[in-house]
Amino acid sequence: MVEQTLLPAQHEQLAVRTVPEMVDAIYRLAVRGAPAIGVAAAFGVLLGVQDQGGLERGAFLGHAQAVCDELATARPTAVNLFWALNRMRDRLAKDEATGADVPALIGGLFEEAHAIYESDRATCRRMGEIGAELITDGQSLLTHCNAGALATAGMGTALAPMYVAAEQGKKIHVFADETRPLLQGARITAWELMQADIDVTLITDSMAACVMQEGKVDAVFVGSDRIAANGDVCNKIGTYGVALCAQAHDIPFYVVAPLSTIDPSLSDGSLIPIEERPPAEITEGFGRRTAPEGVMTYSPAFDVTPARLVTGLITEVGLLQAPDTESILDALARGEQGAT
Amino acid sequence: MVEQTLLPAQHEQLAVRTVPEMVDAIYRLAVRGAPAIGVAAAFGVLLGVQDQGGLERGAFLGHAQAVCDELATARPTAVNLFWALNRMRDRLAKDEATGADVPALIGGLFEEAHAIYESDRATCRRMGEIGAELITDGQSLLTHCNAGALATAGMGTALAPMYVAAEQGKKIHVFADETRPLLQGARITAWELMQADIDVTLITDSMAACVMQEGKVDAVFVGSDRIAANGDVCNKIGTYGVALCAQAHDIPFYVVAPLSTIDPSLSDGSLIPIEERPPAEITEGFGRRTAPEGVMTYSPAFDVTPARLVTGLITEVGLLQAPDTESILDALARGEQGAT
Repeated sequence: MVEQTLLPAQHEQLAVRTVPEMVDAIYRLAVRGAPAIGVAAAFGVLLGVQDQGGLERGAFLGHAQAVCDELATARPTAVNLFWALNRMRDRLAKDEATGADVPALIGGLFEEAHAIYESDRATCRRMGEIGAELITDGQSLLTHCNAGALATAGMGTALAPMYVAAEQGKKIHVFADETRPLLQGARITAWELMQADIDVTLITDSMAACVMQEGKVDAVFVGSDRIAANGDVCNKIGTYGVALCAQAHDIPFYVVAPLSTIDPSLSDGSLIPIEERPPAEITEGFGRRTAPEGVMTYSPAFDVTPARLVTGLITEVGLLQAPDTESILDALARGEQGAT
Repeated sequence: MVEQTLLPAQHEQLAVRTVPEMVDAIYRLAVRGAPAIGVAAAFGVLLGVQDQGGLERGAFLGHAQAVCDELATARPTAVNLFWALNRMRDRLAKDEATGADVPALIGGLFEEAHAIYESDRATCRRMGEIGAELITDGQSLLTHCNAGALATAGMGTALAPMYVAAEQGKKIHVFADETRPLLQGARITAWELMQADIDVTLITDSMAACVMQEGKVDAVFVGSDRIAANGDVCNKIGTYGVALCAQAHDIPFYVVAPLSTIDPSLSDGSLIPIEERPPAEITEGFGRRTAPEGVMTYSPAFDVTPARLVTGLITEVGLLQAPDTESILDALARGEQGAT
């Protein structure tokens, strides 16, 4: 995987060989982005089981569950992590029921992980095509955090419509919020878009309202880490403020996320567990202490944007305008049908 | 003066001995905060004239004007800079009209600079007393940037009500936005409030909306660099976004600023010149590059909050609820009366 904490200064590959290394990579944000975390977790299961072909069948099944449990502790908010692990557990249960032996159980998990990876690529592409229809030539867009190729196995979520629009020959410009504390926008989104020859202007998070007021933003596109059944959107801290500013300026606010990001078990966003990050990411996030010793901090990694601020939710089964419980459950049902 | 760019790691005094050094100190933000910039400019005039007692009278008058012109170039937005320089020019013209000789002209400028300094101290105290009436025991407040003692010659503008409330025995808590790009909130506000034993929690700018949503903020207090005749408020970049978020959560948004911050020559905020800062403050603001080489940036130092988002403007002549052109011109008239 790309070691994303070093971007853009260094573009290095990180070799992840064990389950604890994968948990650490997810916690450190060496791999990040909800869909990418899901794919990483699925491959993390393979790391944990691939050398265990010699185990007795009952022991193997217990071990595989323990590996899934360990990976589930890496980060609490992105539901794609649990979604991918559940797909792996379901596959294991299905193969177990058919009487598969240990090598066949391992083979099934390999198939499932690769299916998750491939479907993420196809899903990103599809969301990009749907989202690109909302973008016209000459528009200027704004995004927060990084929901691009480095956040998925494919071309990204929020950035996918931009990549497809650019492929279609539309000339676009993107404002990238730097996204404190960990600067995913400055480090990753700006880098990704420059690599793709898309015009990008980096701003601090505090400038988003100002550029909207100046009439420089035609639409906002963001990703999501978990979406409740009613359409409340959990995403990187700062997204909610961007949504409020977009609403105040009548700018459409689009969320781009695969169905695997939706958690229908939670009726609304207040139930989504929000990870709190360590103080040092605020007080010395740049390799140098920039706040007084001993200062109190509060550092939620995510916030929740109420569904009423979401102009549209772009999923692989289509655009849900003003998403609500009904349209979301309907989209999930269509996704199930498509998968079967 | 305190060399504010080194806070909080180092608390050092900066010796400013010449006019170019003062211009540089203002441009670098070694001294910052609209009222402090005004006081610094007045003392900058003294640095430029104090050794010129040997000049012929006409040459001295021309030189003093040139010194004022040079200081006026330091930063374009904070009107207190021009206000203080105009007070110095007016004093010079008044003393010139009475036939004062060069030593007496210099003496007059010394008097005027010290009067500006003393009135800033008294003004801060008065605004603190008026603002403290709006704060009740146990409240949690939010501020952006630094409008404290280090931004004035006195106890600050936005922070003055907090200092007075604490003096009155009210237990308060303050969320300090870190205030990218130059982190005045993290480096200076957090440090100042900790020195004063006021509970402060440091957050990134992107977290303000979230803490408001969580019901943790009772009121917002900010300063200002220039206020138009209609009550539009220019302040540190990010203030406008905070104001939009406060409105969305029905949280009162107070601006604390002396009458010298009001520029009645500008009918509304769109006419206020906004300084743009160099890209490096975004891309390598912490001594380490955190964005790709060659990335475009946009870095307005200030934004404009429309008067309709301002719950109240606290000046030394009182609280203006929902300020507008009429109440602002009335306050300026009362200020003139008080001064005469």
